[in-house]
Amino acid sequence: MFKTIGIAGLGLMGGSFAKALALLPAELRPKRILALDTNAKILEKAQDSGEIDEGFTPENAANMLSQCDFVILCLYPKASIEFLRKRRADFKCNSIVTDISGVKSALMRALPSILRDDVDFICGHPMAGSEKEGFSYADASIFKGRNYILMPLPSNKPENLTFFKELVLKLGFARITEATFHAHDHKVAFTSQLCHVIASALVDSAEDTEITAFGGGSYEDLTRIAMINAPLWTELFLANKSELIAHIDAFEVSLDKIKSYIQTEDSRSLKAALQSVREKRIAMVS
Amino acid sequence: MFKTIGIAGLGLMGGSFAKALALLPAELRPKRILALDTNAKILEKAQDSGEIDEGFTPENAANMLSQCDFVILCLYPKASIEFLRKRRADFKCNSIVTDISGVKSALMRALPSILRDDVDFICGHPMAGSEKEGFSYADASIFKGRNYILMPLPSNKPENLTFFKELVLKLGFARITEATFHAHDHKVAFTSQLCHVIASALVDSAEDTEITAFGGGSYEDLTRIAMINAPLWTELFLANKSELIAHIDAFEVSLDKIKSYIQTEDSRSLKAALQSVREKRIAMVS
Repeated sequence: MFKTIGIAGLGLMGGSFAKALALLPAELRPKRILALDTNAKILEKAQDSGEIDEGFTPENAANMLSQCDFVILCLYPKASIEFLRKRRADFKCNSIVTDISGVKSALMRALPSILRDDVDFICGHPMAGSEKEGFSYADASIFKGRNYILMPLPSNKPENLTFFKELVLKLGFARITEATFHAHDHKVAFTSQLCHVIASALVDSAEDTEITAFGGGSYEDLTRIAMINAPLWTELFLANKSELIAHIDAFEVSLDKIKSYIQTEDSRSLKAALQSVREKRIAMVS
Repeated sequence: MFKTIGIAGLGLMGGSFAKALALLPAELRPKRILALDTNAKILEKAQDSGEIDEGFTPENAANMLSQCDFVILCLYPKASIEFLRKRRADFKCNSIVTDISGVKSALMRALPSILRDDVDFICGHPMAGSEKEGFSYADASIFKGRNYILMPLPSNKPENLTFFKELVLKLGFARITEATFHAHDHKVAFTSQLCHVIASALVDSAEDTEITAFGGGSYEDLTRIAMINAPLWTELFLANKSELIAHIDAFEVSLDKIKSYIQTEDSRSLKAALQSVREKRIAMVS
């Protein structure tokens, strides 16, 4: 398939990529899976369990990157851009690089000035995750059946895009959605960031933590993602501020419409609105 | 255990009770499971598959009720009250009656004038359900691990309450939460009705039904309950209007707080709010 793959950042997502790659059948598995992390113990653990072949700490990053035909950056959004800038000279000639960060506008603005011509940067976003954090919760199954959003650049080599799409499907993703980076940031502000804001507000407004004694599954399902990684999501919300605020505003308009039907006991409009919501939700693939 | 049990309304919930009762081990299974429904075909189907022993249509309701030691009303809230009023004379002497409706204030106001002294009404609410409707989606497993809210009345016979609690646990419920009917309506307006309002608004505000091509699970999980039974939830929202409106208002305050941190790029307050939400959600049992 390809020779050497490198993962920068062995947290929940990087660890899940390592595990999913290590689980590929022998003929598909990369010859070597390398990983870079600040935590030497985690690198050791991953190597002991056969999920990576060799671990590197930041002082040996250049050594790792020079060996990698394909690099997956599994870092926070700002750290991804910083990494590309700082390690510009270290990537192997003609290698492919991708990153998984959830907001792309700042990255796309920075990219022209920080990438070498011979490095093929493929812009993607795996729509997968967990409310749990860190390598110990990494799990190949989080990719299963999920969407991978791909934002091809004019500079991408067709054969590299083909390789990337095939790989993603082999790792368990079910659907590849192609979009511009602007469309990505706009849509993901709705499907992902808005949902995290709503779940957080729903926990914030709970009178107490005993409330789940009265739960029937809905509250638990809606707020699972409120076990949120605060530094990561603070960064994502602020990086996509204008798109996210617009979606919060639109959501509040819908919420206030339903609230006013309840307030005025307008049973007919309320029932019609709920019926329309029902049909719209059923029409969505999920 | 007891001789004859009757279920009024063989929809998703009534059907699930019938199936869960039919699946009990022989020494626990009631001698006869009877069901009342307007749809004779569904009664026939349930009888053919052994989930009920005999079906009754409304013109034979009195016949069924006169045989039942225990009756579970699985009707919409208003229909439950109407049923109790209309069938007042039909219940068997010293029988136990319960209903599953999701808002109790109107029922509790009506109860003194519509129940006979010898009939022991146990006020409960199974916190279980599905976004699917009707007997064909009925499934004993929807009760598994769920809460059952019990609102004991001073008139309830202790042995009947004991019987009821034991039965509920045998049907798969994991926890019985005791509350006053007022506390029930207040808490359930938050854990259930508010969540359905939010999920509905989140679907209402979606730009299109293609949005799930950009989904990562959060949107799908948050909006599954928006495949809503519009007539039922219209009735529930309006029956619990003041409690629900108060919770929507509180939720909007929390949402606006988070929105304002994003708007003003107050990274420090945003991170602190999310960290506090994370800890609060982790402290909730789910």
